[in-house]
This record gives sequence, structure tokens and C-alpha cells, in this order.
Amino acid sequence: MQAEILSVGTELLLGDTIDTNASTISRALAEMGVSLTRRVTVGDNRERLLDALRSAASRADLILTTGGLGPTPDDLTKECIAEAFGDRLIEDPQAAETLREFFARRGIPFAQSNRKQALLFESGFGLPNPNGTAPGAVMEKERLIVICLPGPPREMIPMLENSVVPYLRRKLGQDAQVLRSRFLRLVGIGESSASELAGELQESENPTVAPVLRGMEPSFRITARASDAATAESMVAEMEARVRVRIGDYVYGTDDETLESVVIDELRRRQRTAGTAESCTGGLIGHRLTNIAGSSDVFLGGIVSYSNDVKESLLGVRAETLSLLGAVSVETAAEMAAGVRRSLGTSYGLSVTGIAGPGGGSAEKPVGLVFMAVADDRGTVTERHQFGGSRPDIKQRSSQAALNLLRKRILGKIE
Amino acid sequence: MQAEILSVGTELLLGDTIDTNASTISRALAEMGVSLTRRVTVGDNRERLLDALRSAASRADLILTTGGLGPTPDDLTKECIAEAFGDRLIEDPQAAETLREFFARRGIPFAQSNRKQALLFESGFGLPNPNGTAPGAVMEKERLIVICLPGPPREMIPMLENSVVPYLRRKLGQDAQVLRSRFLRLVGIGESSASELAGELQESENPTVAPVLRGMEPSFRITARASDAATAESMVAEMEARVRVRIGDYVYGTDDETLESVVIDELRRRQRTAGTAESCTGGLIGHRLTNIAGSSDVFLGGIVSYSNDVKESLLGVRAETLSLLGAVSVETAAEMAAGVRRSLGTSYGLSVTGIAGPGGGSAEKPVGLVFMAVADDRGTVTERHQFGGSRPDIKQRSSQAALNLLRKRILGKIE
Repeated sequence: MQAEILSVGTELLLGDTIDTNASTISRALAEMGVSLTRRVTVGDNRERLLDALRSAASRADLILTTGGLGPTPDDLTKECIAEAFGDRLIEDPQAAETLREFFARRGIPFAQSNRKQALLFESGFGLPNPNGTAPGAVMEKERLIVICLPGPPREMIPMLENSVVPYLRRKLGQDAQVLRSRFLRLVGIGESSASELAGELQESENPTVAPVLRGMEPSFRITARASDAATAESMVAEMEARVRVRIGDYVYGTDDETLESVVIDELRRRQRTAGTAESCTGGLIGHRLTNIAGSSDVFLGGIVSYSNDVKESLLGVRAETLSLLGAVSVETAAEMAAGVRRSLGTSYGLSVTGIAGPGGGSAEKPVGLVFMAVADDRGTVTERHQFGGSRPDIKQRSSQAALNLLRKRILGKIE
Repeated sequence: MQAEILSVGTELLLGDTIDTNASTISRALAEMGVSLTRRVTVGDNRERLLDALRSAASRADLILTTGGLGPTPDDLTKECIAEAFGDRLIEDPQAAETLREFFARRGIPFAQSNRKQALLFESGFGLPNPNGTAPGAVMEKERLIVICLPGPPREMIPMLENSVVPYLRRKLGQDAQVLRSRFLRLVGIGESSASELAGELQESENPTVAPVLRGMEPSFRITARASDAATAESMVAEMEARVRVRIGDYVYGTDDETLESVVIDELRRRQRTAGTAESCTGGLIGHRLTNIAGSSDVFLGGIVSYSNDVKESLLGVRAETLSLLGAVSVETAAEMAAGVRRSLGTSYGLSVTGIAGPGGGSAEKPVGLVFMAVADDRGTVTERHQFGGSRPDIKQRSSQAALNLLRKRILGKIE
């Protein structure tokens, strides 16, 4: 099977959007052993889209498209595919019903233009899109397979993983070959240092060990192929043990776990609760913790104490601490953590105070200086960090370090 | 001038590297008014590279390539260009000398394979690369221009800015067309409804009017081309007025503005302050507001009242309101907003309470039901929303609607 990817969208050619979808799909194809020989990007232009489709089909037997599935007149992908390969688009009653329900649930009027999204290929079928209105579509016509996915990555990625990959594996007859992957999630170490520690393990061919970034967070993906699941799984487990010998101190979780999900799980397991006192992170830690379904059982809330008045009045930070040592100090962090624990009556109080920049820094307290603390019934532990990067980077790194401090304290790893 | 970009590198097709170069070059071309109609990615494969070059030259008169300029046998870009378009590669004495100096400075032995990097087109010239060993190369042959740039962005970007853009601007000479763009940022309306309201304006060819998504937020981009900046700008302004007649109620800002930056700006302009009381958004609104540099002048902080206890103790929501009407009710939202305003002493108190799911919903109060309120010296305004999507979607949509409610209240648009 030889594949090409066709990315559709004028916003790509104007450089407004980086085409991360093309990389995501490329990696998925590589993992299945599908040979990808070309990627093409065209704008929302009928003639160029038709030309790109016909020329891709002259070389490849699998074409994956992203973009152009929306309701606007600009969205031409499906109709151009039908025209290029002599197929027809037919309204799918189930897709139309799903669309109507989607709009009804939101109380938004169902625009006539939206019906276009329920059109599927006569020689094909639809792919469910749980995160948007545009379903995907597959056309199977003689030796050619065309798979249409929507452009927004948050819609595209789940559809790729849950529908496209299983479909292609069946087509490839790889039901026989089993692939097992495991992610090791890291905190407290950079990507290049982690890669150095893993060393020659990354040269292994089966299982493979590859560094992967999730946002700013480094991970390792271990992938094994074998004739059966048990063998693949034990190959992954054996390699995981070898990787953990080298970088185990930095592994906080695996696969879909996040630092926030691990914190919530550990709190629940121990029937403990937490609250946050955030200054420079401005609510980001609370936002991350509450992204976890069911977090309300153990995360009771927080105080965003952006001003000194709020630090005093709601968190009980002493005026002298603020005036003599400053809002960005280890003492303020400690008092904030103790204060939010007292105020909310939680087992743990987690605090962060720092300078996110770009203004507000000095020689003594530069941008990126961040203090954090955890208070519990055994006392208070603190950490000092000096982060680099933009304001959002510093906020993100602060939230990561703070959640890790709380995690280590819950696990009894720091006294 | 019609351009195509050709990205060369097997690592791109394996999905190991995201092709940010293509976007960077796309944006530079758009800013010069050069029409980019296609981007193609191929691996380090002679036949496919030759085919891609010939086919690009059949459509375009400017081809920009990235990658494949290194010293290894995999690096084929220049020799394929010479072969495809009947040119010759000749060792450039100056480029060879620069290379030898580069290696001598680093004390690295000068491998014979490195001489390949000093080869330039007979019908062309080199482009200096201050950050690496591979110089760029330009071929000018009849009506065709081919520009070769290295793959690493830290080498490519300075060469694009310092050599390629000035060269192309000269080539475009008097014909240089100026491009001006403006984004209209929308809130409170979906992409498809916005597109329907904009109607046939989206068919205009110059200026163009195109819907663009930023995350989940719809926008319109208006782009005009003209012979000079003043004309292009007035064309954009005229089209903007026409678009605003139709969808002006939903336009909250332009270009790089975000809902949070507009809220911070409007507060600062009026010397007013705000605080937040967040339940289901868990800190996201505070996080968004504090992403804006300097927000600490007007955003004093907030209370994340995830539990009912916190709603009572820190926000002063009455126990009867919670027990009789529930935490997710318009009355609780109103008391939260008034409570945080009182507690923090801010001009405005903004509150959100709702059910982010996936659990916790009922027939009467389904997942996605969210109430929000703004309290100020004139009283309290409230809104009820029913959102769809995943838990993160509902949080994001809630934060968007809440920031918009605050914005409208500050602007005096709701009483």
C-alpha cells in the first residue's frame, strides 16, 4: 500500500496555521508500515484540488485528506473527490440525524448549509466525529481508498486513532501482526537530557524507544511488534524495565496519565483533599486539576491571589512578610500554602508565587523566578525554580513543577 | 509570480519532524503578495524528487526548497535540480573557503564529502548561511527561479529574512504587490452561522473574506492586494465595514486581540478592576486573564469554589440557595459574583457555575448546563447556557461566554 496525504486549506498556504495533522498522520502510517511517499498542500480551490487528487491517485492507492469538510462554500474536499473519481455524494440519514441532534443539544439553529456535512460517498461510509459537526468519510473505489478527515487536530486525532488506524490495519491484514505501545511520562527533566540518559536503547529496532514531546512535556514511546499480543506486551514490559533503570526517577506515569490525573488519583486513593493558592499561574493549576473528571471529590478549590491585598485578606500572608521579603519569596510561598490549607480545610495546600514576565523582573528577582510550597499536617516543603521562556511558558512550567512537588509530597518522596 | 514550496526529507514523511519551515516561508510569501498555490513534501529519493521538481516547474515560476543540502549521500536537492532543469553544479571557490574556515574554527576535520556543500548552480549564485555549513543556492534559468534553503529552522529562518525576501522583493520590482490582512475575531456565534451571515461577501476575489478557526473561536480574515500599502489598507477597511454591517454584533476585536486581552484593556481604560468566582471552569478564566502581560493592574484574583463549602465560606453564597436551588443555578451564580466582588473589593465580580461532565448531569440539569453572572455597582446580570462537547470543551466554552458577558457589561451593552 502506497499513501499520500493531501492537506486542504488556504490558511495553510498563507502560513497562518502550521500543518501538524500531516505529521500526526505520517507517524501513524509509519507505525503501520505504510509507505508514505508524498504530502501535498493546496488551498480551498476547486481546480487545484481536483488536479492534486487526480495526480495523487496516479501514484498512490491510499489518499488521506484533512480539511475542507465544513459547512461553508469554501469546503470542497468531498465534492471534488466525488468529481475526480466518478463517485456520488448522498445524504446519510444517520449522519444528518446526528448533526441535527448536535445542534439541538446546543440550542443553535440548524443552518441549511450544515446539511452538506451529512453527505457521504455512495461507494463508502462515514467515520464518527465525537468532537465536531463534520463526520469523516471513506471512499473505496476499485483499487483506490480515499479517507477524508476534518482539519481541527482535536477532531482529527481521535478519529485517526479510533477509526482510521483500525480500518487500515484490517485492510493491511495486520490483524495478524500486533503492535503494542507504551508511553513513559516524564517530569523534572528536559528532552535532550532524557535522551542522553536513555542512550543506545533508542537505537533498538524492535521494540523501538523514541522520545516524544506532549506539549512541553517529554515522554518516551516504547513500541513492539509481534505475532501475538502477549509477546508484544512482554517485549514492551522488558524494554520499559530497562528504560526505567536509567530514568525511572523522572517517570511520573504512563500512557494517557497526566501529572494532574496522577495527583487526583493519589489523593483519591488516600482519601485526602487539596486546595491551591496561585499567584503567577493565575488559575492554571486549578484549571489543570479540574480537567480531570471527578476531581471535585478531592480538589476543593483555590484562591487566585494576584494582588497582595488578596494574599493578606484571603490567605493570611503577613503584611511584614510581603513588605520585607516581597510577594515573590520562599516565605510568602510557604504562608500562602499554609493559608489556603487553613482557609479551605484541605489535607494539602499548594502555592505558587513568581514573576511570569515579561515585565516585573529585577537583577535580584529576575523574570522566571518562581517559589512554590506544599503545606500538610507534617509541615511545609518549598522549592525555588528559575524558568526560562515566554510568559505562557513560565506559567506552564510553574504549574508542572508545582503539581510535581505536590505529587512527591503525597507519595512521601520529600520530607 | 506563482510559487510552490518543496520540502525534502524522509524525516518529514515519517512524522518525526513537523514542517514549520513550510509555514514560515508561506507567511513570508503572503506578505510579499506572492501567490503560493501548492506545497509538496517528498523524501530523500532521487526519482520522486525529480518528478516533484518537474511537475512544480510546469505550474510555477518560483520554487523554494528546504532540506537536502547536507554532505551525506541522502542529500540530493541541488543535484536533482541541476538534472531536472539542465543546469550544472560547479564548486564555488568562496563557498569552499568559507566551509574550510568553518571547520577549522571548530577544530573539526574537513571531510571530503563536505566539499559537496560548496557546489552552486552555474546559472545562479549562493546565499550565505551564518548558522551552519550548507550555504543556500539560487538557480535562475529562463523564466524559472529555484531557491534552495537548508532544513534546520535556525539556519533557514535568518537566510529567508536576510537573503531571500530582499532578493524576491527586487525581482518583484515595481510589480511588487502589497498584501494587507485583518482578522475580525468573533464571539457568541458558530463558524457556520457566521459564514451564512457573511454570505456572498466570501465570494469576493480582492479583498478576500475567509472564515478561519483559532482554536474553537471563529474569525474572518480579510485580505486585499494592491500596488501600494495605502490602497490595500483602504480596501481592507471598506470590506471590514461591509462585514461588520452583517456580523458586527459578534466582533469583539481584531488581529492579535483575544477576548481576555480586550477585557483587560477595557478595564484598564476605565481604571476598573475585576475578580473571578469559578466553579466548573476551575481556574481557566483566571488563567486566561493572567496570560495577558500586565493583567495584575486590573485583575486582582479569584476564588475557585469547587466545593459547596468554599462557595459558602469564601463567597458567602447562602446555605439555603445551595440546598434549595442547587450549586448549579442562576441564584448561586448571582451570589457568587456578588460575593467575590465584595470579598476582593473589585469593580466587577464574574462567576461561573455549571456541570462540565461527563458525570454529574441529570434530566433537569444536564451536562453542559452553565450559569454565569457579573456583579457591579449597578447590580447583577446573569446568563444561562447549554454547551455541548467534552469536559475540556465545556470548560473552554464557559470561559469564552463568561469573558464575553463581562466584556458586554463593561461596555454597557447589557443592562
